[in-house]
Amino acid sequence: VILTVTLNPALDLTYQVEALVAHTTHRVREVAEHPGGKGLNVARVLHALGEPVLATGLLGGATGNRVGELIDRSGLPASFVPIGAGTRRTVAVVDTGNATNFSEPGPAVAAGEWEAFQEHYDRQLGAATVAVLSGSLPPGLPTGAYATLVAMARARGVRVILDASGTALRLGARARPDLVKPNESELAALGPPERVLALGPRAAVVSRGAAGLLAVTGAGRWQAAPPERVRGNPTGAGDACVAALARGLRDGAGWPELLADAVALSAAAVAAPVAGAADLATYRRLRSRVVVTPC
Amino acid sequence: VILTVTLNPALDLTYQVEALVAHTTHRVREVAEHPGGKGLNVARVLHALGEPVLATGLLGGATGNRVGELIDRSGLPASFVPIGAGTRRTVAVVDTGNATNFSEPGPAVAAGEWEAFQEHYDRQLGAATVAVLSGSLPPGLPTGAYATLVAMARARGVRVILDASGTALRLGARARPDLVKPNESELAALGPPERVLALGPRAAVVSRGAAGLLAVTGAGRWQAAPPERVRGNPTGAGDACVAALARGLRDGAGWPELLADAVALSAAAVAAPVAGAADLATYRRLRSRVVVTPC
Repeated sequence: VILTVTLNPALDLTYQVEALVAHTTHRVREVAEHPGGKGLNVARVLHALGEPVLATGLLGGATGNRVGELIDRSGLPASFVPIGAGTRRTVAVVDTGNATNFSEPGPAVAAGEWEAFQEHYDRQLGAATVAVLSGSLPPGLPTGAYATLVAMARARGVRVILDASGTALRLGARARPDLVKPNESELAALGPPERVLALGPRAAVVSRGAAGLLAVTGAGRWQAAPPERVRGNPTGAGDACVAALARGLRDGAGWPELLADAVALSAAAVAAPVAGAADLATYRRLRSRVVVTPC
Repeated sequence: VILTVTLNPALDLTYQVEALVAHTTHRVREVAEHPGGKGLNVARVLHALGEPVLATGLLGGATGNRVGELIDRSGLPASFVPIGAGTRRTVAVVDTGNATNFSEPGPAVAAGEWEAFQEHYDRQLGAATVAVLSGSLPPGLPTGAYATLVAMARARGVRVILDASGTALRLGARARPDLVKPNESELAALGPPERVLALGPRAAVVSRGAAGLLAVTGAGRWQAAPPERVRGNPTGAGDACVAALARGLRDGAGWPELLADAVALSAAAVAAPVAGAADLATYRRLRSRVVVTPC
């Protein structure tokens, strides 16, 4: 099973309004609620592809209960650790196609809760082939939290992918994960691509939006680009990329194959309306046409 | 006990942000959660004044659980009827002192849930001296819902105040409540002040913002004005006014005394930062200085 970790999930609310005007009152026409968080997006894409997956992380409060309820209802296998403070919300106010976003701070996680999570994670690693660590850390966790989780996966011989940013990414990379997947701005925390591997990870796959992927590995460097421009919602494209990389790592796929799959699945996520979903027709159409070149 | 009814309560969220800019992403610096809804504001003001009160209404879903939790934690006596659909949220985004508001639609209430509420309400009326019916009706309830609740209170000899708008107010007024409390724009649904009593209510108290109150009763007409201009947050001032009127009706206060109390408590609510609270120092300072004149 592929184990996805979401330490700072969210209840994502989408509000449809006529037109957002600052400092006025808006009647919300329609409310949508989704479980949010990068690790959950990765898990949902894998689940939609029929891959065995288990989502874990931290959930608390009434918002956490609601996220758990929405996950259960979706059929996604999940086993989260309860915390006392409430899981954060995000609000996306959508008017004429553009979103105005509000993101609450995450819940304060107590030291004992972080220890309980590590024990739970260690048990789940026993059945896992790949662990995926995605997204921000909530307040109260040490900045080295991902480094700890990477080391625990390695100790159990489980492959591990880290998709984080800033200090959490830098410290996590030093613990030698199999793969880090920064985007171009997150890469800045690690330094130039050619020197990333010196930090510790076995490979780095840098997502570059519509330009595709750059992979820096012990076996060489590749660029992978989509064969056509896909229009839609880029939120969650990086998570679909990570889903493909996790599946490929599990199957021992070669780099060119792995990268082509990741580019096609990212584009399929752009074509789907909601983060955590992928348009499988787009995926199949693009999969064999992605251009991967050594660089 | 004064029984307050809130059929469409809300989980009120207040987000502090640096500056709201449409179609950009905002990090929320601070989140506050409050139980929202006009009947709950009335109950909170009465509770703060030490008056025996019981809040009832409908609560559902994870948001309803959270509202119930916040009510319990505040110590306000409450007994709500559970519904299947989720209680709505409101979001107030506050930047440089101004708020941008988003109001979710209310939950769909099933016919059986409305029947269960009526039974519950009827039982609570057994111990009540005054019933206060405040605010909007959630989807699924008949527009005559308040007319039904007014009639039930009258059948039990319980005094009843209606603070609603539009058709719910007009139909409710015809059921002959002891008092309706429209603001000037809600009054439009009822017609000119001098003809309001012909519809059915024994009295009408019209709130006119900083100008104070106009009372039209079988015993005469009065104007009541605050002795000074109070600055602050006018949200909830109308609910504080209703709280004073409910207490006065219970105690059989004469109209001039009742109106002076309502004006002072409204002004005290403006001076308090949150709806459902009143600044008791402001209340005491203004109470004896409100000017009530026949008109």
